[in-house]
Amino acid sequence: MIKLFKKALLPLGFKAAGVASGIKRSGKLDLALFFSSVPAKASARFTTNTLPAAPVQLCRAYLAHGASFQAILANSGNANCFTGLQGFLQAQVSSRVAADLLGIKKEAVLIASTGIIARTLPVDKIKAALPRLVSMLSKQGIGQAKKAILTTDTYAKECTVKFRIGTHTVTLAGIAKGAGMISPDMATMLSFIFTDAHISQAALDTALAASVAKTFNCITVDGCMSTNDSVIVLANGQAKNALIETHKNFSEFSEALHLVCLTLAKMMIRDAEGASKFIEINVTRAKSFEEARKVALSIANSALFKTAIYGENPNFGRIVASIGASGVRVKEKDLMIKVSSLRKKEVKVLVSLQRGTQSATVYTSDLTPEYIKVNAEYN
Amino acid sequence: MIKLFKKALLPLGFKAAGVASGIKRSGKLDLALFFSSVPAKASARFTTNTLPAAPVQLCRAYLAHGASFQAILANSGNANCFTGLQGFLQAQVSSRVAADLLGIKKEAVLIASTGIIARTLPVDKIKAALPRLVSMLSKQGIGQAKKAILTTDTYAKECTVKFRIGTHTVTLAGIAKGAGMISPDMATMLSFIFTDAHISQAALDTALAASVAKTFNCITVDGCMSTNDSVIVLANGQAKNALIETHKNFSEFSEALHLVCLTLAKMMIRDAEGASKFIEINVTRAKSFEEARKVALSIANSALFKTAIYGENPNFGRIVASIGASGVRVKEKDLMIKVSSLRKKEVKVLVSLQRGTQSATVYTSDLTPEYIKVNAEYN
Repeated sequence: MIKLFKKALLPLGFKAAGVASGIKRSGKLDLALFFSSVPAKASARFTTNTLPAAPVQLCRAYLAHGASFQAILANSGNANCFTGLQGFLQAQVSSRVAADLLGIKKEAVLIASTGIIARTLPVDKIKAALPRLVSMLSKQGIGQAKKAILTTDTYAKECTVKFRIGTHTVTLAGIAKGAGMISPDMATMLSFIFTDAHISQAALDTALAASVAKTFNCITVDGCMSTNDSVIVLANGQAKNALIETHKNFSEFSEALHLVCLTLAKMMIRDAEGASKFIEINVTRAKSFEEARKVALSIANSALFKTAIYGENPNFGRIVASIGASGVRVKEKDLMIKVSSLRKKEVKVLVSLQRGTQSATVYTSDLTPEYIKVNAEYN
Repeated sequence: MIKLFKKALLPLGFKAAGVASGIKRSGKLDLALFFSSVPAKASARFTTNTLPAAPVQLCRAYLAHGASFQAILANSGNANCFTGLQGFLQAQVSSRVAADLLGIKKEAVLIASTGIIARTLPVDKIKAALPRLVSMLSKQGIGQAKKAILTTDTYAKECTVKFRIGTHTVTLAGIAKGAGMISPDMATMLSFIFTDAHISQAALDTALAASVAKTFNCITVDGCMSTNDSVIVLANGQAKNALIETHKNFSEFSEALHLVCLTLAKMMIRDAEGASKFIEINVTRAKSFEEARKVALSIANSALFKTAIYGENPNFGRIVASIGASGVRVKEKDLMIKVSSLRKKEVKVLVSLQRGTQSATVYTSDLTPEYIKVNAEYN
């Protein structure tokens, strides 16, 4: 049995902390550290943007060469993107300073950033704040840490899932930031998931890839793909359960991880910039999951569809136009479209293509004057 | 020498008329007819949407089988799209009734519609209005006809280009409607171009394809692809110039047609729904025109970029993110970006990729609260 809690409760062996280092001019929390007392396996998925931020480049390098990881250092307020070699070196320095204070190797410290692109990272502020951040690490520190990764989010996204393997309780706790620049492959989102599960690297990688494909890669706010998207899972084995492998105890873990990712993904959409509606688009009877997702995303990313939902305007034709714009060769006579009442805060769109047996669900928000206000002023 | 006039002056042998047939509840002009007194060659480009409207399907059929055309019947207020076999038959009936009144074959009457999708075409209103429409055909009728194809446009788009071949003056006159649902491959746009040029079918097709690729397919308002986009050229030979072929007098004609298309395309962007800025995005040093266009469109369709321009907010990073989101493997160190003052109504973005020698220019508008207002209420 899987239990879901709408709060991040760190699993065995994990601590966290969050501080205001001065990166954000507002003086809000902007630097978070997550630490496992023992080495953990890590698995991660990043943006497919061809101009990824320095921390994404650095994580890719660390993950390609290392096998064990113990910390994630994340800042908000500055994306450290389009900052060239200097930005890359600053990300590396951040990991080294944190590692020295934690008594581990710099390659065991993964880095994430979110915020304004193309501005120099104020790395001295990070270096200056790190001793305090490390000294504050605690189980309860997740309360500050989850806030320190936010940008335009109005609240922290968090959840915990627990399930049992034999007599051992396995815990997964996840936090995320979202809000805008959210689009498949991935969103401007950071998500960190901590688990005490004892699991093989292959099982962790497989479960994460499958979960991300159907959760974080099935949400969109504005079709804008970020340079910094990262979802990182650390698994430290402290639950001491029988090993989870791709052929053993896998479905339980995979289901739990999927639930964490889906819960966080939906929370991001509910807190999308300026959103007044939560929209679920379910495309069925497609030839493949990819085809169904393509059609669903074409609807979800249509500015005309999104404004119609905002206006509670049943402009059915905009759904038709966006399905056709997906490039999928749907036949007009086979297409079935149903839309729930637009008066409600939650709107469901059901599309059946009559082409096959596969389906996909995509979550999105409406496009509102408030979205424009938020983004016309943000810098 | 090519002369450009910002008004549609019908070439020799063409007439037009526009009436209010009652399709639009507002009682505004909604039905236009264009007629050549002699058979003309036609060339056309349509939406690539996989759910094209009935008139697009009908035109494709007529163009595939016929060689000479004499009229275009266009209505606004109803797109006759997602209307099944009934919609197709109604488009066909419209062409037949017009043809009978004009004394020509129904296959010589091309049909276009724009407006709400998925609503039955009130074909009886069209049939009832046709006798009057035919009786009103005149050179000056273009003044009403150009208005009868508009939807949310705030003004008619029109222009005329004249050039000489020997002692013969060749005229091309174009009109268009645009406003929203404007995106490459093509926009919710109708554009009709009339020329008295004496030209081979191959030369007409080649010139139109080349012009559309760099004009109508290089504009975007909201990334939304319509089901009804059509650009149709009729060439009736009445200028009696030496024949234009792909190897003879071609560049003059091609240049003139390009100028008509570009002028109309830019007018559409200037009149984009809710727009407060006219944005030109010039991507240079790409490996191919397609690559340059892909990068330019990725910027142009970014909701975050468009809102930043609306807010006169120099959020440079959003350009970086959208370039990377295009999928083109740009190197960070090679990328050069320049943006003109955001305070002006016209904004230019220059991007150099340092990958090759090809370039593309895309025109777009900003994303404003007014766009949302227009589209939240339109139905």
